[in-house]
Amino acid sequence: MAFAAAASDKTTTASVFTEKEMQTAAWIRDAARSDNLSYKILESLTTEVGPRMAGSPGDARAVAWAEAKFRELGFDKVWKEPVSFPSWKRGHEKAEIVAPFPQPLLITALGNSVATPAEGLTADLVEFASLKELSLAPADKVRGKIVFINHKMQSSNDYGLVVPGRSAGASEAARKGAVAIVIRSVGTDSHRFPHTGVMRYEDGVAQIPAAAMSNSDADMVARMIKRGKPVSLKLDIGAAATGSYTSYNVIGEITGSELPNEYVLIGGHLDSWDLGTGAIDDGAGCAISMAAAEFIKRNGIKPKRSIRVVLFANEEQGLFGGKAYLAAHQAQIPQIQAAAEADLGQGPVTKMSSFVRTEALPLVKQMHTVLAPLGIEPGDNNAFPGPDMGDLRVAGAASFGLSLKADDYFDLHHTPDDTFDKIEPARINQAAATYAVFAWMAAQAPLHFGSGPELAKTMKK
Amino acid sequence: MAFAAAASDKTTTASVFTEKEMQTAAWIRDAARSDNLSYKILESLTTEVGPRMAGSPGDARAVAWAEAKFRELGFDKVWKEPVSFPSWKRGHEKAEIVAPFPQPLLITALGNSVATPAEGLTADLVEFASLKELSLAPADKVRGKIVFINHKMQSSNDYGLVVPGRSAGASEAARKGAVAIVIRSVGTDSHRFPHTGVMRYEDGVAQIPAAAMSNSDADMVARMIKRGKPVSLKLDIGAAATGSYTSYNVIGEITGSELPNEYVLIGGHLDSWDLGTGAIDDGAGCAISMAAAEFIKRNGIKPKRSIRVVLFANEEQGLFGGKAYLAAHQAQIPQIQAAAEADLGQGPVTKMSSFVRTEALPLVKQMHTVLAPLGIEPGDNNAFPGPDMGDLRVAGAASFGLSLKADDYFDLHHTPDDTFDKIEPARINQAAATYAVFAWMAAQAPLHFGSGPELAKTMKK
Repeated sequence: MAFAAAASDKTTTASVFTEKEMQTAAWIRDAARSDNLSYKILESLTTEVGPRMAGSPGDARAVAWAEAKFRELGFDKVWKEPVSFPSWKRGHEKAEIVAPFPQPLLITALGNSVATPAEGLTADLVEFASLKELSLAPADKVRGKIVFINHKMQSSNDYGLVVPGRSAGASEAARKGAVAIVIRSVGTDSHRFPHTGVMRYEDGVAQIPAAAMSNSDADMVARMIKRGKPVSLKLDIGAAATGSYTSYNVIGEITGSELPNEYVLIGGHLDSWDLGTGAIDDGAGCAISMAAAEFIKRNGIKPKRSIRVVLFANEEQGLFGGKAYLAAHQAQIPQIQAAAEADLGQGPVTKMSSFVRTEALPLVKQMHTVLAPLGIEPGDNNAFPGPDMGDLRVAGAASFGLSLKADDYFDLHHTPDDTFDKIEPARINQAAATYAVFAWMAAQAPLHFGSGPELAKTMKK
Repeated sequence: MAFAAAASDKTTTASVFTEKEMQTAAWIRDAARSDNLSYKILESLTTEVGPRMAGSPGDARAVAWAEAKFRELGFDKVWKEPVSFPSWKRGHEKAEIVAPFPQPLLITALGNSVATPAEGLTADLVEFASLKELSLAPADKVRGKIVFINHKMQSSNDYGLVVPGRSAGASEAARKGAVAIVIRSVGTDSHRFPHTGVMRYEDGVAQIPAAAMSNSDADMVARMIKRGKPVSLKLDIGAAATGSYTSYNVIGEITGSELPNEYVLIGGHLDSWDLGTGAIDDGAGCAISMAAAEFIKRNGIKPKRSIRVVLFANEEQGLFGGKAYLAAHQAQIPQIQAAAEADLGQGPVTKMSSFVRTEALPLVKQMHTVLAPLGIEPGDNNAFPGPDMGDLRVAGAASFGLSLKADDYFDLHHTPDDTFDKIEPARINQAAATYAVFAWMAAQAPLHFGSGPELAKTMKK
């Protein structure tokens, strides 16, 4: 046995949930599904706090809101843990085509972008179909130009394909002498909202301003370029790095009845981008996980282990909250019974995958039996628990992937349009019910799920 | 006979279209439907000119574009007629809730709004469900406050119901001592775009700043207000009247073969609001009518009467182009065989109504026979020809109402999101085909449709 550190190893003799436990889990599923608490929590966060970009005044307001909300909801323990990071501030942002067809564009600076000179910056555009095409281009095609990466997401599956253009495009362009970069937004909508998102400068490469335009504007600019005359763009961006900032992971715990030092970890990230109010990214994840745990507390059905809800600081600009959590809790990985974040919108959950030791798989199957009536499919045993918990999994934390349906997620993601009116109670209620069932069953399970170095070795990429 | 002034009265003996004419009309319908010209014209206008608010530099560029495009398309005559109006300029516009839940709102000034003081203007909001509720409220509830009219469009049918809150709300609020007004946008979408649109100050009433917020933001502000504490809004709007401006109605004509001085009048308005590129409002109407006439010219099937395409100046701020056209052509109403504007988006056309003398109704029925395969229903004989031609109808011009399907129109209307990527070729092609059939048949008709003072008397409200 590689799991000697885990107190619950004693319980491995009983390897299935009892009939009564299965009934309780089914009751949670059905009762939580018609409970509007997640919807109400999200209404509160988006209305009373709104935008909460890491390092902004909204960040501090969100931390205060989260502590107060956990207390109001009656969590047994509420605390916060510091998370430090370099902060960045958006300023004004304007763009206009100055020739041959003058008209304004709607743009947004990418997170970490430097400013243009105070008088703005004007140059001809050079278009590339992708980051890869840019990387293959000769420098003399790029020098002195504003690079336009026109790589379109066809569906939410393309996120991983397109996002390197946002994160790495500026340095790639600067290496070839570009004076700025504008990208087609990483987003699936056809509305005139540019999508922001983080970018990074490589060390030793000139830092050039980086911005995104909406799909609508990218279509238009492409049409202009197709006419064959040089298309000249003026960018005027105010933005700046503003030094170090300390925010907090805010944590609420429902204490377990038998194994309080082991815990199921759920949560979302508390920060959002500044343009919208962070309803789907990731207020929804915070609300789903807070509501799931509160539902168990409220109904007096505490499981054996604790349920810990972590609202992570600054996911958007580099997973700072997740990294800080791992650093602070590295030694306690075996105490994590299972980890599952919610950070892909309002639900519903469509699939449940796991990352547990083999002995626990029959329990996972029983958990899925309870969730199947919610329309949830079974997945594999190589689950990814979510961005802020990804490093915990690498460190050996047993994980669950409760996949949220992302059909509208990349329409709204990182835009001003990420607002509460997009949330449908039936969708978020289903997700909160799923997380409640998962958290309760994992916390009640008669077997340790296997977190530890041995489990880490079984991870597939 | 009350129509002695019309040269084509001589032709009243033949009161039906010939079989050959019916065949030609059907050929136009089928051939024009797969012709992408309207789509291409609209692509050109939105890409090469873009926003063209009356009195802005885009207005002059649009006039130059329209003259050049008519010539490029081979119209027989191209000219322009001056249209003067007071112009208005938008400046910066910012809004934020300052208490109890600080966060920015996205607003847009309404057309004609005055500016706030340079340092902005901050006051508590007072919410009304409608303009009517505001008008019934005691002044002491409103004095010193910013009025918030929270009247929501449920569908495009509500436009007439809700728009008075936009146009007349400021003076109603100011009469009771309000310091500014913000309205829920007149729009059916659920995206975070405020919709602009014209408003008017009453003489002798204080002029207060007037702005709109998106449905998303209006929902949020209403949620804040529901919490029962005063909600304080800061508005910072730069906007100004900028004196008189002269733009132009731009006109292209395909000259008739037998009765060149009589004409069928089609068109749209060339101006747009400044926020978008005016694809659906009303680039589509311009493109549909230009393409319809060009199709007839190109195929060498000139009808007896002329077809005149008028692209009206400054519809948005008060129908100035339509009024100027009437003033310049008042004496020639009987020369208008039929008038029909396109100003409700990209199509398709769903209904054809008429406003003609009784003797012409059999011809209208034949025209509908040709159009029915396009999914067009028959309407009544009290047609409204469109905003810029409404006064022509009052003056007695025979009119047609070719009703465009407005399902997405008030989603996009007057927002930054009114852009070319929303246009579907199949929809706009159907509309252009319909206008081509209508224009050709009306221009070819063996009977004068009755424009004149006698027809005016038959008009129902």
